[in-house]
Amino acid sequence: MTRIELAKKGIITDEVKEVAKEEGISPEMLSQNIAEGKAVITRNVLRHIKPLGIGKGLKTKINANIGTSKDKTDLKEELEKLDIAVQYGADAVMDLSTGGPLTEMRRAVIKHSPLSVGTVPVYEVAIRAIEKYGSIVKITVDDIFDVIEEHAKDGVDFVTVHCGVTMKIVEMLKSGERVLPIVSRGGSILANWMCYHGKENPLYEQFDRLLEIAKKYDLTLSLGDGLRPGCLADATDKYQLLELITIGKLKEIAVSEGVQCIIEGPGHLPLNHVETNIKLQKSICKEAPFYVLGPLVTDCAMGYDHIAAAIGGALAGMYGADFLCYVTPSEHIRLPNKEDVKEGVIASKIAAHAADLAKGLPQAWQRDNKMAEARRNFDWQAQIALSFDPEKVSSMRAERPPLQDEKVCSMCGEFCAIKISRRAVEL
Amino acid sequence: MTRIELAKKGIITDEVKEVAKEEGISPEMLSQNIAEGKAVITRNVLRHIKPLGIGKGLKTKINANIGTSKDKTDLKEELEKLDIAVQYGADAVMDLSTGGPLTEMRRAVIKHSPLSVGTVPVYEVAIRAIEKYGSIVKITVDDIFDVIEEHAKDGVDFVTVHCGVTMKIVEMLKSGERVLPIVSRGGSILANWMCYHGKENPLYEQFDRLLEIAKKYDLTLSLGDGLRPGCLADATDKYQLLELITIGKLKEIAVSEGVQCIIEGPGHLPLNHVETNIKLQKSICKEAPFYVLGPLVTDCAMGYDHIAAAIGGALAGMYGADFLCYVTPSEHIRLPNKEDVKEGVIASKIAAHAADLAKGLPQAWQRDNKMAEARRNFDWQAQIALSFDPEKVSSMRAERPPLQDEKVCSMCGEFCAIKISRRAVEL
Repeated sequence: MTRIELAKKGIITDEVKEVAKEEGISPEMLSQNIAEGKAVITRNVLRHIKPLGIGKGLKTKINANIGTSKDKTDLKEELEKLDIAVQYGADAVMDLSTGGPLTEMRRAVIKHSPLSVGTVPVYEVAIRAIEKYGSIVKITVDDIFDVIEEHAKDGVDFVTVHCGVTMKIVEMLKSGERVLPIVSRGGSILANWMCYHGKENPLYEQFDRLLEIAKKYDLTLSLGDGLRPGCLADATDKYQLLELITIGKLKEIAVSEGVQCIIEGPGHLPLNHVETNIKLQKSICKEAPFYVLGPLVTDCAMGYDHIAAAIGGALAGMYGADFLCYVTPSEHIRLPNKEDVKEGVIASKIAAHAADLAKGLPQAWQRDNKMAEARRNFDWQAQIALSFDPEKVSSMRAERPPLQDEKVCSMCGEFCAIKISRRAVEL
Repeated sequence: MTRIELAKKGIITDEVKEVAKEEGISPEMLSQNIAEGKAVITRNVLRHIKPLGIGKGLKTKINANIGTSKDKTDLKEELEKLDIAVQYGADAVMDLSTGGPLTEMRRAVIKHSPLSVGTVPVYEVAIRAIEKYGSIVKITVDDIFDVIEEHAKDGVDFVTVHCGVTMKIVEMLKSGERVLPIVSRGGSILANWMCYHGKENPLYEQFDRLLEIAKKYDLTLSLGDGLRPGCLADATDKYQLLELITIGKLKEIAVSEGVQCIIEGPGHLPLNHVETNIKLQKSICKEAPFYVLGPLVTDCAMGYDHIAAAIGGALAGMYGADFLCYVTPSEHIRLPNKEDVKEGVIASKIAAHAADLAKGLPQAWQRDNKMAEARRNFDWQAQIALSFDPEKVSSMRAERPPLQDEKVCSMCGEFCAIKISRRAVEL
């Protein structure tokens, strides 16, 4: 039986107890939310990692994308990126490799990762089609499902599947109304195939086939947003919403069949669209876990897109997004390097933590309250330990240390407001 | 006559026309907002820089703090920081020096800065008191006003004055309810003096004396928030609100006397307090320009506080904050270096721009729409030029260039979604 099936029968598994304990909620509540498709635990039945809970009542989680591209196929570097993602607190990683030996890469990531691993199988479908047939339009329907099953069999915990990119929407896109019709790689591969063959998206048409594979491995489906806006001008438009409605229907079918789903969302959104997008998703998809890619609150932050994404992600999390996909400083420019991964993970952690504080999660507040106490007490070791990057904080402080008083810092020195005001009001 | 007096008489000056043109609004509207204390133009009558508009109907502005501390008194470095702030788009700088030859430093900053310059005169008051009397509690009331006048005479465009730190609030603070009673340096210096002498804050008690000086130079008063929360646990508490109410009253007096004011605000706030804080300030201070210090949405982002501040600042800007004080990665750790200044300015620019997009400002949307078009057209030169840091974007792209197709980038290579989808839907 799958997790949803067990939860529907009221069976509380050890896995549910483990996640509930870590999150500080009751196992019954978590189990109920899993049964209703409002929370998921991502772990392939073949894997022996710590189970990851995502969704209603749980802490905001973050994902780090790693993986090669055709222009950069260094497996060792990608595994180092994985280590960095783990070190700085990512909750999951996605291997989005599109270059080099993909199978080897995927298996290595799964083997090395203590975190849930996600993939986008259609990338590999496309790459094999180019190798085998010379073109991505020559993909066969069986190719798609074969690769998905292969990923599941290798132990992948969740897969992005762009089931909502339907023929109807792709036809509508031809109107040219969108500035950037499709910015999802998986979505564009499928749309290209659909246009060439004049056929419906196999992931939509044969959704039952996908559910069969997912059930076997208790694989979580991340229903991809192939029509997410790729610029602010395209935000919250009819294409995005029509896809969301389709995904919402498919999610209901999946949950009734015992398959866990998370729903992917934008993308690029002006800050004043964020609340609306979260509320729409939660309403249309009946509180399914929401996995946002950013959202980036400006198109212009190249080189600093991790900051634009932290702004959007924090707000999204406050309004109920459950899972934030990190964005690195190299987004829109090139494949990230290790430093980019670190910057991306930390920015995303800050956003998720800010969201959890805003939602009033006790675990999040404990951390900030400890930091405030440490500041009050001039306890630098505690402050450093409570930061997101203790090594950086230590070295920054060492670079320009206070010269006369170890209690303060070189910003204010003897004019430390905490020191002066405590002297005043504690007289 | 001061700007407010001219505006009240319906006289539209060339300065007002210049600012209105740059902002894309009508000079009449701007003049009306100045008359009502809802917008200010910060420029000392002695200065010949570009006038800076802050407030209702205007773009969100950002300030960069520079200045020495006792532990680091390198004037040359501070002027280099000024250049960096100008290069990356700061709208104003504050010289917060507390170490070395303060007068020389201030005059050098004013001389070199094409931007409005602000200061916090009470720092210098305190430093001189230590030199002269051996202790900050020996400050005399005349010392305070003398230094403020000296700053105005040197050409400072706006000064932070902590007029709202009243005896009543300082007495209340002794209850010990706050985790961090005062985190404002200026506020703590005044509170310390008040407690020692058992006397009211001279900046409150002799507010008319401050107005006299301000009128002479058309100096803008930045009514400082000495009681801003220094940690999330202290956010939006009675101390903060009582000070805000006092400041709101003083601002009304100032505007009626023809003196421009901006109101300073938090500080550290959980993300779900930001909207409330902006609405409270706008209501209590009758739409006076609001200058926020962050707000930082977590206490734990040491080393990355520019990101925590960008999250809070963007949201604050969307809800109506007019002026964002940057925060650098070195906040809470040490005096910032040049790289910190750059990081801080860019993060703050992104936040301000995201806010302006959310508010629907046409100039902000033009930039993002151009970026989206450049992406659609694979126009890398335009993308780089539209970014906040063209040099960084260029060098990042050069570091891992696309190997086969100059149009794309090394993230997706031949799987560029824009390329594939345009092929599909433009058939």
